[in-house]
Formats: sequence, structure tokens, C-alpha cells
Amino acid sequence: MTSTPADGGPVVPSATATVALRPLPLSASRLTGGFWARRVAANRAAIPLGHERLVTAGNIGNLRIAAGEETGDALGGTFRDSDVYKWLEAVAWEHARSPDGGLPAELTRTVAAAQCADGYLNSGIQVRGEERYARLWMSHEHYCAGHLFQAAVAAARATGETGLLEVAVRFADHLAETFGPGRRGELDGHPVVEMGLVELYRQTGARRYLDLARHFVDARGHGNATKPGFDPSHYADPAHYADRVPVREAVAPEGHAVRAVYFAAGATDVAIETGDADLLAAVRRQYEALRRQKQHVTGAVGSRWDGEAFGDAHELPPDRAYAETCAAIGTLQWAWRLLLATGDAGYADQVELLLYNAVLPGVSLDGADYFYVNTLHRRTGARADVQRSPAHGRRPWFNCACCPPNVMRTLASLPAYLATGTDNGLQVHLYAPSTLRTGDLTVDVETDYPWDGRVTVSVREAPSRDVELALRVPEWADGATVDGRPVAAGGYARLRRMFQAGDRVVLELPMPARLLVADERLDATRGCVAAARGPLVYAIEQPDQPAGVTLEDLRIDPVAPLRPEHRPDLLDGVTVLRATGAVAAGPAGAPYRPYGGPAAPTRPVPITLIPYYAWANRGPHAMRVWIPTP
Amino acid sequence: MTSTPADGGPVVPSATATVALRPLPLSASRLTGGFWARRVAANRAAIPLGHERLVTAGNIGNLRIAAGEETGDALGGTFRDSDVYKWLEAVAWEHARSPDGGLPAELTRTVAAAQCADGYLNSGIQVRGEERYARLWMSHEHYCAGHLFQAAVAAARATGETGLLEVAVRFADHLAETFGPGRRGELDGHPVVEMGLVELYRQTGARRYLDLARHFVDARGHGNATKPGFDPSHYADPAHYADRVPVREAVAPEGHAVRAVYFAAGATDVAIETGDADLLAAVRRQYEALRRQKQHVTGAVGSRWDGEAFGDAHELPPDRAYAETCAAIGTLQWAWRLLLATGDAGYADQVELLLYNAVLPGVSLDGADYFYVNTLHRRTGARADVQRSPAHGRRPWFNCACCPPNVMRTLASLPAYLATGTDNGLQVHLYAPSTLRTGDLTVDVETDYPWDGRVTVSVREAPSRDVELALRVPEWADGATVDGRPVAAGGYARLRRMFQAGDRVVLELPMPARLLVADERLDATRGCVAAARGPLVYAIEQPDQPAGVTLEDLRIDPVAPLRPEHRPDLLDGVTVLRATGAVAAGPAGAPYRPYGGPAAPTRPVPITLIPYYAWANRGPHAMRVWIPTP
Repeated sequence: MTSTPADGGPVVPSATATVALRPLPLSASRLTGGFWARRVAANRAAIPLGHERLVTAGNIGNLRIAAGEETGDALGGTFRDSDVYKWLEAVAWEHARSPDGGLPAELTRTVAAAQCADGYLNSGIQVRGEERYARLWMSHEHYCAGHLFQAAVAAARATGETGLLEVAVRFADHLAETFGPGRRGELDGHPVVEMGLVELYRQTGARRYLDLARHFVDARGHGNATKPGFDPSHYADPAHYADRVPVREAVAPEGHAVRAVYFAAGATDVAIETGDADLLAAVRRQYEALRRQKQHVTGAVGSRWDGEAFGDAHELPPDRAYAETCAAIGTLQWAWRLLLATGDAGYADQVELLLYNAVLPGVSLDGADYFYVNTLHRRTGARADVQRSPAHGRRPWFNCACCPPNVMRTLASLPAYLATGTDNGLQVHLYAPSTLRTGDLTVDVETDYPWDGRVTVSVREAPSRDVELALRVPEWADGATVDGRPVAAGGYARLRRMFQAGDRVVLELPMPARLLVADERLDATRGCVAAARGPLVYAIEQPDQPAGVTLEDLRIDPVAPLRPEHRPDLLDGVTVLRATGAVAAGPAGAPYRPYGGPAAPTRPVPITLIPYYAWANRGPHAMRVWIPTP
Repeated sequence: MTSTPADGGPVVPSATATVALRPLPLSASRLTGGFWARRVAANRAAIPLGHERLVTAGNIGNLRIAAGEETGDALGGTFRDSDVYKWLEAVAWEHARSPDGGLPAELTRTVAAAQCADGYLNSGIQVRGEERYARLWMSHEHYCAGHLFQAAVAAARATGETGLLEVAVRFADHLAETFGPGRRGELDGHPVVEMGLVELYRQTGARRYLDLARHFVDARGHGNATKPGFDPSHYADPAHYADRVPVREAVAPEGHAVRAVYFAAGATDVAIETGDADLLAAVRRQYEALRRQKQHVTGAVGSRWDGEAFGDAHELPPDRAYAETCAAIGTLQWAWRLLLATGDAGYADQVELLLYNAVLPGVSLDGADYFYVNTLHRRTGARADVQRSPAHGRRPWFNCACCPPNVMRTLASLPAYLATGTDNGLQVHLYAPSTLRTGDLTVDVETDYPWDGRVTVSVREAPSRDVELALRVPEWADGATVDGRPVAAGGYARLRRMFQAGDRVVLELPMPARLLVADERLDATRGCVAAARGPLVYAIEQPDQPAGVTLEDLRIDPVAPLRPEHRPDLLDGVTVLRATGAVAAGPAGAPYRPYGGPAAPTRPVPITLIPYYAWANRGPHAMRVWIPTP
């Protein structure tokens, strides 16, 4: 098997790919402390718990039965292998960084043993003896393949270990022999195989995987995902399967949010690798529609519980936000690919927004509990009606446990998102204490970001020629300076010179707390503001408010100052915002009353905001991101 | 069989019931023209279409197969018989009024022939040979029984025809022998049998039906609705089955909205018939919680698509309102029973609110198309993702077609809600051209309500003793007068005297258009107003606005006058409201922007509001009940 050398991250465009930026090798992008290092460490500590939960939930047992290592009946849905693969991917990225834990070779052998002689692999289908691909619209057989391919590539890149990659190649060859023009034409109801196939192409150089991915991308939107055995009583809507409109014609993401963004990320991969400018323009247009019309202020996406779906444009309810953790991760993957493709700093802004405010809220500070649904508003007395209700608070696992191992693999690979390189420069996208290297340029980054906006970049090693150090200036960072000189917000401050070891560059990103309002068409947040500081979106949570003040009765004075205060003792160390609020002095009145009556009397109260990602770490309490103004 | 004489409506409390008010006989409450007469006529015209659709959908075929009149396989869910029964109930009420159409004797014979020898009846279970009651939590076997009982009682009361009543009694006897203390303990996942059993008790005098209803009421909330064969992957939440909290302890309706309100209405029936003051107090408390925290401004209930459920308190999104037509009808049934029990005019206000603004919007002006979901906000370009999406506009039928025949039976029995009687008086609750009689007092009502607030009550016949004529003064009717003398809004104007034939009483209900705001805790409508005039809630719909103005960009000036204008040519005749609006002069900006920037420039435009019930009769267009203020 052809396999590129180890030491790549989750996306490694091929040498012929049309990209503006290239990811750094894993070893060239290292966290050395600070905010993300703490979160990554907590994630690492939780990875063994993930294995236990996969055993308890039966996912690993299913594979062991298929492998002949156990006997029994397969449990649950045919999507379950994917959770194991995502967990294996997390292990691979962690192992690359600190191999003391060891790779779970036994589990890799189980996966290999479960694989059929012709390369097919789905433990649920195999153990139950079901017909392959008979209900591909809902069986997740390609979906599981896609996650296997991603995990296998991760293992190969991160550790050099190719056992899983061999399984993946056999499965991918089977797919290439079975699906595509002149072969079976149906599509999996749940995309992700597209990204997996492109990664496998990148890793192995086998063009047939890219060809199959391109076929899967262009075959969508023509009813191919709702073919044999389709049961419209499940979800009749073809958009649920990302299959209503061909990708080149689509104007905005729609339907099941995770499927939509996974598919768009895969289409972006295909566009990059095939140099397909039209396809790239289509997915960029769709991302812009998402950003303008279908994204919560936290970066999260998905508005409808029914179908786990995008809503119509501007349908973004804070209380019933679905905002699935997996959808945030898929959007992150899509934004990252667009950043590589274009070099447009707006996508890096999105990567940062998503990581801090849409992915990170999905996991507890100790790394061990997860949200499936990331609400932006939990009411006092909210009742948890289903297992994935955020009213429970975070939970250790779910019957459909896509989100927990997805968080694990994302945080395990987080250093890959810090920076990129080009032939002649380094682009720093995320600010964290880190060491970054591209070619013969190595820098150390020191910062207390996201609590403080001062970022010091020290050159450790530099070539004796001009190179460009590009430092992202977030769109919120009005008044930013580099070495005291003003730089524009919303782009990169580009320093092109011959650097020398010991050179220091200081980026200052002003971080006044700011209040945001939404587009007038966004109905659900009318009359409210959301607070942010630096890259972080804030929220009010009940425990931080004065005794006797119910969160539902709190309003915020939008013209009073918001005062940041660092609290190392609180929530693993956060900067809170102190603000002035008002609370209604009496009980609520009639549900509907005439307009223009006397305003209810209020009394001023101090209120405290915490970073949104840190909510629900002190039990289930009322919380809201969007706060009414008087 | 004991059967009380014909000529009763949908609720006829027994002689020993604890009620403040008693319904009028059907023949004593007749519409003679006006608004409701037109709507009832449209409904009558659609009833034959209902039969065609029940044939096409297979519901009647299922019963014919069970009866041995056809061969074939049963289609669809085991709830399907209920749609036939609701349709039969509609036919019965219509038949009583104008018997020319004839009762569908053949269908009644089919139902009778389908019944098992021991009284059991469910065509789906029987044809498929499934075990009875094996999955009562989702099989709707008692639910279908409840609707059969209601239809059978309707046929007996409205027409004297007892064929269906005999079927009902056999089924009820079977239930009484099978379920209850010392017998099977499980409950149907979907209430309605409680109301049906109490009605059957009222009609036949057989106490065992009331006892079984009381048992079903008190056995709920103890996990009895999620017993054998329960599959938590359906809906694990016991509240979905109205089974989380015993009715006497519950503080607010929760879970599946139709189930919750049907159950509460049945519990109210039991409270009335057993004189159970504690139970009545419990359901009154729950109704008050519904009114204050869980009811849309239109009277509709149900906030969540997921589980067709009530949300948490104050979770009332206009755009994703579920507001199922059946839930409005169930709330109407509940409110009507509470009105009978208490004589509290607030419940009559609710009956009126619900009929005009929550039930009536569920059907098109021609009576032939239906909403399942009654949204309060349809966006421009809204995409219909499922069959029951209101983005389609109204539809002829649904796969789960509970709503259409429910509208049919409700409008067919509408005259029953006009007034009630007591030993010594008449209470008029709804104003419509009508003739009303209780005992030896007969009055004619003339009015152009709801377009005009003048109501003239003329005495046609009166006893030679003091009687009380009670005229409801809605809570919105500030400044109301009776014969020129002020009367208080929110109660009854009570005229006690010896009336004589020819006496006239004139009630004047001022109807200025008014703007409403919601309780501060109701987040989704913040910064918006809703318009109402008299009993009608209004909405803006795209076709009535100036060319080139997109509904999403419209705001309403809340201090400018709203001018009513009657438009006999529009939407079968409506009074519109002319208002002053403003429209943003430019395109929408960033999705989220700093608070306090310059206000977007706007230009004034005239806007026109129509009664909400009349929307979506000109094709699918954008509409909103809650309109942003500048």
C-alpha cells in the first residue's frame, strides 16, 4: 500500500490540490499550555471512559460478535460502528502527542477480524444477517465506512500504524467496485463517506477513492439517497438526506443539519482535490447563507428538533435551538476546508467561533459529560422530556452517541487548527501558548488568550530570507495593533521580512466586552442582546445572580458598562463580566395585555455573565445567551 | 337499552351532575344566519368529501375488511377507526339540523358487523390478527372506543338512531369487564375514552361506564399508560402519554398536547358527574396554568413539533407553534365543560377565543382543506418539509387525519356552544343570529358579530315570572352597555325580570381595534404586538401589503390608529384593519452586529391586517400574527 509519511493532521491536501494554505504537520503545531491545553488534557483524561461506555453500550460487543470473538445478538442501529471509529480516531491523535497510553491494537484487530472477505464491514448488518445496502437511505453503511476511513487515516498519519488503514482500503475498494457510474446508484442517507474517501485518496494516492467521492457528491440532490426500500414515514423530506437539490444548485444548507454540513465539507474536499472552481463557489455561497441566515450567535447550527434540522432563514430560536454538537463539528470541518481552499480569514474567524462557543459547550469542564443539544436558553424549571434534552444537563452517553466521540476526536486534534503554512510563510489562526513550525520557520506563541488579547510571537528559528508571518486579526478586534502599529480587524496582519531567532512580534487585540443584537429578521431574539468578549460568547446562569432573582425576570441595561473580572477560582478559571441588570418588582401579569400600559416597576441588580461554554457545570440551572433589554 | 330522549348536544350532564349551567337541547339552539352559519354551511358541504377521503385513505376499507364485506390487508395505524367515528359524529349533528342527507346507515352496519362477538372492535388489530391490548400504550384501542362512544351518543341524541349506540354499549361493556380494579390495569397511551365513557353513562344511565372513566382518570400518572410492550424509543417521556403525574397533583398540562387536553376534559366530565370538588379544583388549576403560561394569543396550544407537545412555561414560538387543530378542539371541549361546571364567564371567553382563532383557522373558507399545524408565522420562502407543515397551506387530508373530521364534528355541533340554560334563566355565551330557548323562554338574537358589537336580543316567548337573561360581556369589551347602561367587562350582564314577548335588549360591545403585548417572560414575541378586534385575532399576510414590501421587513407603528374597514368582497367578507407600518429601506445587514449602532432607515407604508382565521386562503404566503414594532 502507498501511504504518505506519518505526521499529518485531519486534513492533508494532496500535492496537486488547489489550496491557498496547507496544514502544518502534527509535530509542527504543539500546544504548550493555556486554555486549550487544559481542555485537551481533560479530553484526554476522558478517552478511557469513552471505551468503557462503548463497551457498556454494546458498540464494541457488536464488532466482537461480527469478528467471531463473542456470541450474541447485535444491539441497536447500524450506525453504531461509527462511534467506535470516532473514538479510535481520538485515540490516534492523542497517541501521536503522548504515546504512553498505547494504541488499542486489540480493537483494531477486532475491526479487521469483523471485516468480510470482500471488504464489506458493518457489524449490525452482518450479525443480524441483513441484506447489504437494502436500506442504504437509513442504514448508515457508507456513513460507518466514512468514519472508519477517517480513523484509519488518523492512525496512519498520527502513529504510522496501518492496520486500520488496510481495513479501510479493503472496504473502500469494495465500495468502488460496488457503487458509482455503471454500478449501484443509491447513496447513503447520511453523508460523511465523501470526506472519508478523499482523505483515503490523500493518504494512499489511489485516485479511485477521489473519483467515488466526486460521484457521491454529484449524485446527491437527484433522489438517489431515498431509493430502495425508502420509507417516507421515517422522513419523507429529501432534504433530510441532503438529497433535495444538487450541490451545485443549492443556495443554503437545509434539512438534517449534521448531514448537510458533513456533505458540504466533503464536497469542499472534492472541490479542493479536483480543482473544481464551480463546486468551490457553490459551497462558499452555501456557507455564506448559513452564516447570514442559519447560524446561532454561538456559531452553532440547527434550529429544529423535528428532523434535527436547519429551519427556514432566520429561524433561530435560542430555547429550542437544536445546535447538535456534531453539527458544530461538521461546520468546523467545513469552515476549515474552506479556509485551506481560500485563505479567507473569515473562515478562520468561524473556526474560532465554533471551537469556543459551539463545540466546547458540548463537553463538561472535566471532559466526561456531553450535550447532544446545545440550547442557548434553559428556563427555570425546564423539564427534560427526552434523553438528549439539555434540561438534563450534560450526560455521560446517549442511546445515539454520535456526539461524545466526535468531541473526543475534535479536541484530540485541536492543535491542527492553530496555524497553517505556505511555501514562504506561517499563518496563525488561533492564539494559544504553542510552538508552530513550517519549513525552517519556528515560532513560540505566548498569550493568556482568550482572557487577554496580548499575543507574543517569538521567533525561535528562521530562514535567511524573507518570509511572511500572518497573524489573524479577528473581525471583532477593532483597534488591534502589531508592535504598536494599527492593523485592520477582519483579516491577517502580514509581516514580511527576514526574521531572526529571538525576534518578537506583539499583537494586541483589544477585548472590551461587547453587546450584540441580531438582524431584524431574526425574530426569536428581538429585544435582546448577547454579550461577547474576545472570541467568547457569554451567558447568564442562575448561580451567579443575586439571591432571590429568577433568571426569567432579569433584563440587562445595555448602556451600562460591562466590567471583565478574572476569576481563577470559578469554572476552572474564567473571566466573568459584571453588568447592571433590572428585575421586575412584581409577579408576571396577564399572558397578553394591551400595548402601552404602564411599564412594570423594576429595581436594579448586579448581574454576572460567564462564558457560554462553561455553563451547566454546576448542575442544571436556568441560563440564557440572549438577554432582554428593558 | 336505556337511552335518554334525543335532542341533546355533545355534552349532556346527567340529572345528578354538579353543574352550574346546562346545555340547551339541540333544537333549542339554532343559528339563523351570519358568520357562524356561513362557516357551518361550508362545513356541511365538505362532509361528503370527508367520506370520499376516508374511503381513499382506506379507513372505511379497514372496517369493511373486518366486517367481512371486503378482503384485503389492513392499512396503517390502529388509530384509523377513530377518523371514521369522528366523521359519523359530524354527520349526526348535521343530520339533526337538516335530515335530508340521511344517515349513512350502511356505514353504521359495517361498524356493527366489524365488531367482535364479545364487543371488542378495532379493525386494524382484527384484520392483522394482532393480540388485543398488547401495546395499548400506542395502539389507540381505547382511543378509538372513545370516539366511537362519542359518535354513537351523537347519533342517538341528534337523530334517535341507536344502531351505533348498541355497538358502543357492547364495546363499553367489554371494556368494563376487561379493565379496572381487579382486572387489566394498563391504560391507552392516548386519552379520549374517558369523555366517551362519561357520555355513554349520561346517555344510558349505566353507572359502570362512569366508574370505569373515573378509574381511568385516577389510574393515570402512575405509569399505567406505558406498560406492556412499552418501547421507550418511541417516546420515553411518560408525559407524552399524560402519565407522568396523577391528575390531582398536576399543576399544568404537559407532554403531547392533544392527549393532555382530551384527558383533562375527560377528568372534568368525571368531576362533574361524581361531584368531585377536589378533581374539579385540580383541572381548574391546570387550565389556569395553561391560560397563563402555555397558550398562544390565538388560544391555540402546543409549542413543540417534537412529540406534538406543550413546551415549558412561556415557550410559545409563533413560527414553530405546533398548535394542532385537534389540540384547540380538545381545549375547547375542556373549557366548555369547565364553563358548565362553574358558570365562570372566563371559560366562555376561552370558548369564543378558541372557536374563532384556534379551531376555525384549521379549515379553509370553503370547508374542504385543513391545517394540522396552525402556525402563527409563516416566513417568505418557507419550505414544507413534512406533510403536515403549514408551509404547504391547508391540505385535503393527512396520513394521520385526526384533524379534518375533528373540525367537521366541531363545526357541525357549533350551535350547542351558543348558550346554556338554568331552571330560571338563559345564558348567552356566543353572539350570532340565532334562536335560543330554555324552558318557556325563547329569544331571537340579531347581530353582525364579530364584525359589529351590537347584539339585539328579542324575546319571542317568556314565562309569566321573573327569569334571568345573562349576556356574556367579554373581557376585552371595556365600555360595554346594555340598553345604554354601562356593564362590566369580563362576566355576564344579568337582567332579571318578567320578560314579555316583544321585549328587546340591546347589548353594545365596543370593538376598537387593539394591540396586545405578551407577558415579559414570553420570549418569542418580545418587541412585537398582536392586533385584535372584538373576538378576532388579526394577522398580516403578504397579499394585502404594498407591492414590493416583503413581510419580513415590515414593522407596525403601535401608536398610529388602526382603522377597521369592512370588505364584503374579501375572504368571504371580513373587516380588515388599516394600520401604519414601516419598512426597512435597505437589505438586511450582518447577522449579529454591535448594539446601539445607527438605526436602519425606514420608510412608512400602509399595512393591512386580516382576521387570522382567514389566512392562507389565497395560496401559501408569508403571514405573521406577532408584528415587530420599530
